[in-house]
Amino acid sequence: MELTRKIVDGEYGSVPIAVAGVSGYAGAELARLLLHHPRLKFSRPVFYGRAGEMQSTSLTDLHPQLATHDGPIDPVHPFDWDDLVERGTNILFLALPHEQSRKWAPEALARGIRVVDLSGAWRLQQDDLRAVYKLEDVDPVLARELQAEAIFGAPELHRNKIATARLVANPGCYSTSIILALAPLLQAGIVDIDHGIICDAKSGVSGAGKAATAKTHFMYAADNLSAYNVFGHRHTGELLEQLHLDASQIQFTPHLLPIPRGILSTIYLRLKEVTTPDAVAVLLRDFYKDSPLVRIHATPALPQIQHVVRTNFCDLGFELAKDGKRLVLVSCLDNLLKGAAGQAVQNMNLMCGWPEAEGLL
Amino acid sequence: MELTRKIVDGEYGSVPIAVAGVSGYAGAELARLLLHHPRLKFSRPVFYGRAGEMQSTSLTDLHPQLATHDGPIDPVHPFDWDDLVERGTNILFLALPHEQSRKWAPEALARGIRVVDLSGAWRLQQDDLRAVYKLEDVDPVLARELQAEAIFGAPELHRNKIATARLVANPGCYSTSIILALAPLLQAGIVDIDHGIICDAKSGVSGAGKAATAKTHFMYAADNLSAYNVFGHRHTGELLEQLHLDASQIQFTPHLLPIPRGILSTIYLRLKEVTTPDAVAVLLRDFYKDSPLVRIHATPALPQIQHVVRTNFCDLGFELAKDGKRLVLVSCLDNLLKGAAGQAVQNMNLMCGWPEAEGLL
Amino acid sequence: MELTRKIVDGEYGSVPIAVAGVSGYAGAELARLLLHHPRLKFSRPVFYGRAGEMQSTSLTDLHPQLATHDGPIDPVHPFDWDDLVERGTNILFLALPHEQSRKWAPEALARGIRVVDLSGAWRLQQDDLRAVYKLEDVDPVLARELQAEAIFGAPELHRNKIATARLVANPGCYSTSIILALAPLLQAGIVDIDHGIICDAKSGVSGAGKAATAKTHFMYAADNLSAYNVFGHRHTGELLEQLHLDASQIQFTPHLLPIPRGILSTIYLRLKEVTTPDAVAVLLRDFYKDSPLVRIHATPALPQIQHVVRTNFCDLGFELAKDGKRLVLVSCLDNLLKGAAGQAVQNMNLMCGWPEAEGLL
Amino acid sequence: MELTRKIVDGEYGSVPIAVAGVSGYAGAELARLLLHHPRLKFSRPVFYGRAGEMQSTSLTDLHPQLATHDGPIDPVHPFDWDDLVERGTNILFLALPHEQSRKWAPEALARGIRVVDLSGAWRLQQDDLRAVYKLEDVDPVLARELQAEAIFGAPELHRNKIATARLVANPGCYSTSIILALAPLLQAGIVDIDHGIICDAKSGVSGAGKAATAKTHFMYAADNLSAYNVFGHRHTGELLEQLHLDASQIQFTPHLLPIPRGILSTIYLRLKEVTTPDAVAVLLRDFYKDSPLVRIHATPALPQIQHVVRTNFCDLGFELAKDGKRLVLVSCLDNLLKGAAGQAVQNMNLMCGWPEAEGLL
Repeated sequence: MELTRKIVDGEYGSVPIAVAGVSGYAGAELARLLLHHPRLKFSRPVFYGRAGEMQSTSLTDLHPQLATHDGPIDPVHPFDWDDLVERGTNILFLALPHEQSRKWAPEALARGIRVVDLSGAWRLQQDDLRAVYKLEDVDPVLARELQAEAIFGAPELHRNKIATARLVANPGCYSTSIILALAPLLQAGIVDIDHGIICDAKSGVSGAGKAATAKTHFMYAADNLSAYNVFGHRHTGELLEQLHLDASQIQFTPHLLPIPRGILSTIYLRLKEVTTPDAVAVLLRDFYKDSPLVRIHATPALPQIQHVVRTNFCDLGFELAKDGKRLVLVSCLDNLLKGAAGQAVQNMNLMCGWPEAEGLL
Repeated sequence: MELTRKIVDGEYGSVPIAVAGVSGYAGAELARLLLHHPRLKFSRPVFYGRAGEMQSTSLTDLHPQLATHDGPIDPVHPFDWDDLVERGTNILFLALPHEQSRKWAPEALARGIRVVDLSGAWRLQQDDLRAVYKLEDVDPVLARELQAEAIFGAPELHRNKIATARLVANPGCYSTSIILALAPLLQAGIVDIDHGIICDAKSGVSGAGKAATAKTHFMYAADNLSAYNVFGHRHTGELLEQLHLDASQIQFTPHLLPIPRGILSTIYLRLKEVTTPDAVAVLLRDFYKDSPLVRIHATPALPQIQHVVRTNFCDLGFELAKDGKRLVLVSCLDNLLKGAAGQAVQNMNLMCGWPEAEGLL
Repeated sequence: MELTRKIVDGEYGSVPIAVAGVSGYAGAELARLLLHHPRLKFSRPVFYGRAGEMQSTSLTDLHPQLATHDGPIDPVHPFDWDDLVERGTNILFLALPHEQSRKWAPEALARGIRVVDLSGAWRLQQDDLRAVYKLEDVDPVLARELQAEAIFGAPELHRNKIATARLVANPGCYSTSIILALAPLLQAGIVDIDHGIICDAKSGVSGAGKAATAKTHFMYAADNLSAYNVFGHRHTGELLEQLHLDASQIQFTPHLLPIPRGILSTIYLRLKEVTTPDAVAVLLRDFYKDSPLVRIHATPALPQIQHVVRTNFCDLGFELAKDGKRLVLVSCLDNLLKGAAGQAVQNMNLMCGWPEAEGLL
Repeated sequence: MELTRKIVDGEYGSVPIAVAGVSGYAGAELARLLLHHPRLKFSRPVFYGRAGEMQSTSLTDLHPQLATHDGPIDPVHPFDWDDLVERGTNILFLALPHEQSRKWAPEALARGIRVVDLSGAWRLQQDDLRAVYKLEDVDPVLARELQAEAIFGAPELHRNKIATARLVANPGCYSTSIILALAPLLQAGIVDIDHGIICDAKSGVSGAGKAATAKTHFMYAADNLSAYNVFGHRHTGELLEQLHLDASQIQFTPHLLPIPRGILSTIYLRLKEVTTPDAVAVLLRDFYKDSPLVRIHATPALPQIQHVVRTNFCDLGFELAKDGKRLVLVSCLDNLLKGAAGQAVQNMNLMCGWPEAEGLL
């Protein structure tokens, strides 16, 4: 990380960035991405703990893999709004439990700080869908306004709105994998949505978070596979809103894979009309022609988890039955990167007017 | 494991059993089950290699985990029909490539030896479905007769026919998991089969066999998940024939899991009429009330791979959507046991008139 | 595996066995072994929870893999001394935290019930070594007497004493693997003990117990390896006492492997005199010639974890340097079986006068 | 990888770099590192296949994880000396079998191309140690000269010589982990080398290469641990030469871990004099004070594989017994990075006069 280059005027100005909540898995990846981000070389991000974590610590203490030769790197400060304001913070990432994000996002906006929220707190516009998060608002009127203003942070769908947004709700990991696979086909109107779409998704254990529970115990997860939340996983709401479907039109069942990270979603649907693999390929490629973080596999190659892990890509592939109507889509991503921290940085890039994939390739 | 039977003279008489092909993973499990089988205590099974494996070896050399304190256990002889006949072999297990099974089964039957074939050679009655195996028959007329006579070795479906069969075609691992889940519902006529049934199946690596290939390399399989044979896996034919469906009514897509063994199939279907979880549970329990190797999970518990690995059970569970029509079945088994060697022994038990689960609990 | 015994009246009489504490991993294996034990077919063991676990449950609720077709198997009762006494309990397994075992063993003995304790509570005779467990005795005088009476339950070393013991302290998993490898050589007096013996041991995660902690989290253990307790793991005391060494003569460092179960210990030592591989092999084979649960590998084959997992064996192998003096021993076992539940049943067999390996092959 | 920055004069000149052999695991990492190397932004490396691989392919075909949104990236050309010369190649990485490297390095040097060889072909100066590789030289006189000229590419030990070397022999993965741990202590003369040093090393499966063999089969490696080459692994020669020890003074036994990548070496030794943990820590820190790719852990923290995987660091830690003389060192690295491709790039950096860790942090 020798930084011997001269600063070319204006090339990398100072953009004060802060992160609240870096103790989790997505937090670690977010820190890593920001510390290596070429636009932040001369404007190092500032890290804060969660509310109530009053002791200072360091990134290295939390995540030893991030250490340098010279020992503990960046401090992790107790959270402090005054400190944030003083530093002129421009964008604040919230990598917090959703209850806390729901409280803190308004606080940040009130101080003129833009927010990228990695939780589920602001993703859903419909109250009944959002109810699954059991959120309580201090100021319900304000919260309603902010909710309406919040942009769902899927850059491939809402690139322009994100660029100017004050509050970006970073999508769920499962939902990202499914939405990116389905959006092109649904927008093209070729899916028989009334037949119903089946999304069988499988995720590595990091998706379950850092809390030590019976289900994150090595002995539970290793050499195992289990389905859970067969109907009603809370990411379902994102599918409904972003894909404009109702609950009878799409089914999503997640499974817990015995691997650290990665999601593979296998999606089964019927097309309205007989079509060809080429036509589907063209449709996908065209939809994502300007999306540097989506890779379309040429049939018959299909995405695999090992090809996306530790990358910021979402990989898409498909196979069409000989009848020309039954389509199987396969979508892969790293749940901590394109499914969380990588997508959050992608949103930051857009919000700063930088190239979307800067620091992510 | 309740063994309340009285032990009577001659009950454990001599039943000459032989196995051809014990070098693979299913072969190892078959050897282990037979060596521990209570009815074979005084009639040790005899093991043979594949055609062309002319050197004698021992089970221990092939599978060190089977060794005893006293060193190499049972020899594995070069295959020899005369030897088989001399020993008065009653039942011969074929754990061989399907091409070889297709040739050897007629040879065995001609010598009065009953066969349990673990390959795909004899499972399919329809020529067009069986074509996927590219089998060549020395005597096509005889092969056609034997094919017609062959019984699909799913004890839960064909218990009585298996008991008297000369040639039992042990089912595929994937197909066992799917057929056992669907048979009760399809036989009850409650499934909307024209809507289509989706079977998303996931299997451990032992299902891919012992050959060292790019796909069985640790670096390919570990920390990965991949879909393959999205349409047209060769076990599909078994689903069609056993479940009396046509190819448009059922879709089956397998995935390779980063675990040694175990299959989990997630099956999505619609019911013709609104029903209740209780009604589905009753239907499943009733169907399998006399099947000691099927376990029905009480909703909301679902089967998991870790609960069936190293057992001879197939575990079934389900969840019904609130609409009472969309049903998700989850079926788990150990692909080497209930999906191969365990089911083969279950078939042997039936063929010998012994309790179906003898030596399998 | 050969069961040539005649089955005679009364052979399988009633032997009331009970287990306290079946909720853990070793408890599950203990239950499984006892339920399948041929001598207990007509005398089913009784299962109890830990102190304070007042609610009845079932083995199936705790360990779904143990279920039968007919649903929940054996109940797990709240612990109750009166119930134990009423049932005429002969042997009680304690699969409990060591503090609890230290309290309950005297209680059982006072009621005429023999004890096999799977914890570390009674393994060490020297107070200073046992201090690591921070045990408190209600009646220190009695505890001292019982401690002196307790037999270290390594059947290969103390077979005869175990047969008549009232209190058997089942050895630690790491210690079993190391003691069985070293005992023959040390007893033969051929090891240069003053040079120092290095034991580099590696264990699967089940050894860390069922509690969900930061270190048993899948994300910590998977794809990882870490050394811990480099000096001073509490199993060290067992090595010192059983092998008659002092702390300067043996070093033992454990590592956490990313696998569910299995221990491999690599042991480095120097011999006093130049010797040959054959001489070492003869010495090991001779020492274990009557030990059905120890398998000696013929050089150059070495034990591997996959060959002992789910077996009750300890596998031993070695390689001798060309100098004839530097010896590397490799010892493998399943930490839940030969390292815990399997060895406990082996002890029970001896205490009942049954063949040592009954129900364990 | 948006490259919108202006080129500051002279900052990143053109440095023609080529790689021969990118189909393996280390080749993939080498390609990735070079493609992201800041000094090579305007001078993209050129990739060639092995001898005999005559078909052009692409990095993406070989390693789909390296693909970009825009599809297949860099071509992989059939190997061609003329092409290399025409491009003015400055440094050639050889990621080839050692037999091929032994032949090609002289060819490259004869054409004025400097070589970083990742195989074992040029690492050992002593003929008897190198004999393990069974190398044949076309021109033995020249080979002897080049061997004498070859520099062992451990930057932390031979930084200055590497800078001007024509032929750098990149160290083995195991040897790197052990040499970096021991060099500071041995150079300080505080180790009782006559007592003997024990190196118990454990490596992930990628160390065994990409060839599909019985030992790289998922079913062999998964859920397993095995020792191999107990005495006489071919990396031992590097330890002897680099650490100036004879074969009686150091023992090195490798084990195969069930993980994709990472090495942990546990090293046991005795010090000549009683010392303190602080003194050891100071010694290590001082030795590596200018080595940006070595991280020293503060006792009692020890390195773990998960903290070095996907990094270019070697992590070192230790624990000293209370007697002040028995020392256990723990050394971790990623066998494909600091143990192969990362160290190769570190060598390239030195050879080009760039900061040692450029592109590696």
